Amino acid sequence: MAVQTIASATGIDLGPAAALSCRECGHRVPLGPVFACEECFGPLEVAYDLPAGSPQELKDKIAAGPQSIWRYAPLLPVPADVAAKPNLNPGFTRLIQADRLAADLGVDAGNLYVKDDSGNPTHSFKDRVVAIALEAARAFGFTTLSCSSTGNLAGAVGAAAARAGLRSCVFIPYDLEQGKVIMAAVYGGDVVGIEGTYDDVNRFCSELIGDPIGEGWGFTNVNLRPYYAEGSKTLAYEICEQLGWQLPDNLIIPVASGSQLTKIDKGLKELIKLGLVEDKPYKIFGAQAEGCSPVSSAYKDGHDVVRPVRPDTIAKSLAIGNPADGPYVLDITRRTGGAVEDVNDEQVVDAIKQLARTEGVFAETAGGVTFGVLKKLVEDGRISPSETTVAINTGDGLKTLDAVAPTTGPTATIRPNLDSFREAGLA
Amino acid sequence: MAVQTIASATGIDLGPAAALSCRECGHRVPLGPVFACEECFGPLEVAYDLPAGSPQELKDKIAAGPQSIWRYAPLLPVPADVAAKPNLNPGFTRLIQADRLAADLGVDAGNLYVKDDSGNPTHSFKDRVVAIALEAARAFGFTTLSCSSTGNLAGAVGAAAARAGLRSCVFIPYDLEQGKVIMAAVYGGDVVGIEGTYDDVNRFCSELIGDPIGEGWGFTNVNLRPYYAEGSKTLAYEICEQLGWQLPDNLIIPVASGSQLTKIDKGLKELIKLGLVEDKPYKIFGAQAEGCSPVSSAYKDGHDVVRPVRPDTIAKSLAIGNPADGPYVLDITRRTGGAVEDVNDEQVVDAIKQLARTEGVFAETAGGVTFGVLKKLVEDGRISPSETTVAINTGDGLKTLDAVAPTTGPTATIRPNLDSFREAGLA
Ligand SMILES: Cc1ncc(COP(=O)(O)O)c(C=O)c1O
Ligand SMILES: Cc1ncc(COP(=O)(O)O)c(C=O)c1O
Ligand SMILES: [Zn+2]
Ligand SMILES: [Zn+2]
Repeated sequence: MAVQTIASATGIDLGPAAALSCRECGHRVPLGPVFACEECFGPLEVAYDLPAGSPQELKDKIAAGPQSIWRYAPLLPVPADVAAKPNLNPGFTRLIQADRLAADLGVDAGNLYVKDDSGNPTHSFKDRVVAIALEAARAFGFTTLSCSSTGNLAGAVGAAAARAGLRSCVFIPYDLEQGKVIMAAVYGGDVVGIEGTYDDVNRFCSELIGDPIGEGWGFTNVNLRPYYAEGSKTLAYEICEQLGWQLPDNLIIPVASGSQLTKIDKGLKELIKLGLVEDKPYKIFGAQAEGCSPVSSAYKDGHDVVRPVRPDTIAKSLAIGNPADGPYVLDITRRTGGAVEDVNDEQVVDAIKQLARTEGVFAETAGGVTFGVLKKLVEDGRISPSETTVAINTGDGLKTLDAVAPTTGPTATIRPNLDSFREAGLA
Repeated sequence: MAVQTIASATGIDLGPAAALSCRECGHRVPLGPVFACEECFGPLEVAYDLPAGSPQELKDKIAAGPQSIWRYAPLLPVPADVAAKPNLNPGFTRLIQADRLAADLGVDAGNLYVKDDSGNPTHSFKDRVVAIALEAARAFGFTTLSCSSTGNLAGAVGAAAARAGLRSCVFIPYDLEQGKVIMAAVYGGDVVGIEGTYDDVNRFCSELIGDPIGEGWGFTNVNLRPYYAEGSKTLAYEICEQLGWQLPDNLIIPVASGSQLTKIDKGLKELIKLGLVEDKPYKIFGAQAEGCSPVSSAYKDGHDVVRPVRPDTIAKSLAIGNPADGPYVLDITRRTGGAVEDVNDEQVVDAIKQLARTEGVFAETAGGVTFGVLKKLVEDGRISPSETTVAINTGDGLKTLDAVAPTTGPTATIRPNLDSFREAGLA
């Protein structure tokens, strides 16, 4: 009751979102473009008035909803009429039973699933988080949509802003893959390359928010981060709904800032609390590239704090050396009995190809990291062949062609006649 | 009844598919891997035992089906349990109400829609046709899946074969875009570049089918073409279902071989016959690139036959100089009161950017052709602002980066500080 009063007092309609609450100390503030607790500097999260009604009623309502993340609007910080507004309607991507990959890896048939988020409008999971941040930006009256990005977020922001008719200005490290740079720019917003790493880009964006220049700017993953982050919960919702409202035993999730992994865990806990799935143990595993593995290193060393690193990996979308939610990733993976693991660039490429060859899914390097880690975990027995495992492909292979280009191409080039074909030795 | 006997006599279960029937003379043959009429050399099409029951019963059955083309299984040449077999489950892509593009073009708000088939698993409409061809290949016992391709089909075949555990060997012109070549190859099948145009590739594939080498090979768009082609009907079904079971007034469809346009028309006619939509006039427009416009030229010249050309356009996926279904495209566009129009490469690029800037949809060059033609048709009044128009984006901008790369990139590159940002003049 007290909570609802805070929300409505601000005149902000973000549906069931009632307030922001500090993940560390629980301090509550009204909904607004703030992201750090004024008491303890902890990250703010969205707190909800959860929907009334029985679990079955809620399931029926969801099933009757749109084929996008908006079917879960009652659990998200968005107005009830969100689906009618111009946005990219992301989500409800395919959950693929991956029996051929399972056979390759030694997992029992029927137990391995690929959640393929390359089916989103700009072909990464970032469309989910941006769609939520866009609603917050509208609610707070921002006129420019912005972000610091390792590549995918920039494209998702550019596209969402274009569709919504907002200006966009996104910031990326200057040395990203061509596909990501062009995709960020093609929607007509401004794209600023920064001479530095993602961590430099991110630091600069924080500066910009404090400066008069940044007035009216909604940075999806900075001042709108509490809303943005909630978008990743929809991966948890969809996976469980697509499994017939059941929790998987294991989830493998790539880690850059750690936001996605943290919020998928939050989503699973909400489903349990609402009675939409039966409570049972699940393990969450984080996946990093060896060339940028601050969280995996801390996990292995038994530390609670994450020591920043300077990234050097082909998995550029995961190249965050100073991950904001690293400590929560450590906490969640340890608490659930999971782990954080890493693979090297060669293993990333091998995993991209293995997934393509067995299931017809062409993942970007971040997916290569995830499926490389999956392989490692199955091989060393930390994932059991008899348990249900879901690995998320968060991005698209067309955006990171360079990773596979040196070893992927035509088998032969011939003249258009049978003799030439016979000579190629493929008959 | 007679028809059903033919189908069951062969022991082939392709659901409601009863026989193949010649589009020209009506001659019927049992379901099999044949594509030309033995009487008149006309193209064979699938003939059906259409489902029993009222329109409402069929609509309810479809609505309760999977979120993929398999919701229309009762209208397709596939077994009833198709959704349970390993395939890419394409389709049910987004239909986007494009009010910002409409405003740009001068179409009334609410009247323009983009059917965005870049959301398919390999990001083009080809996943639809391949999914159907795959079922035919299985039914006929083929062990290698093949095709002649302008690029997208090769990727779709490679991915579908990988997922199904079949061998694949695809044939493409040697000079395709990098994204298309890599995507074709990454799934682990053989990719053969042919020194020549698509028409050379296609001629070579016909030769291969007649040769012992080609035994056991299912060429999706040659010996399996009658089945393959039916996949495009699902675009008609989805568009009408997503419009609330209504026919649009105008449809704009890109034309390479002309198969897609021809079968979308077939799909619309089936919906009318089944009573799933109310009968009313609709216009079908074909879109070609000026540098490969044999059908558009014939249309403008008032000819019934299509004179082959040698393609020279950035819209490589549409670069078929000798289109098999060209005469049907002429027939359909004339009969419905539509047209076939073409745009030059500069207009293709402009249209890609306009669609990206207004709706957040990044199309490939084929989409640029379609939306360039849409613009032309609205400008010269052949499409009325007060009518409902659906334009199909059949492919993905990430596969044809070179088209926009020269004019698309970062607005600025700066050092990570406010002074540097101010100097860039973006504040
Ligand atoms: C493809 C892809 N996967 C995963 C991630 C990880 O996201 P997070 O920062 O939430 O850990 C990113 C982040 O940019 C990404 O682009
Ligand atoms: C993206 C795209 N759109 C449209 C077409 C046209 O297809 P059709 O040959 O059926 O006319 C193709 C064919 O390759 C294509 O790749
Ligand atoms: Zn606090
Ligand atoms: Zn005939």
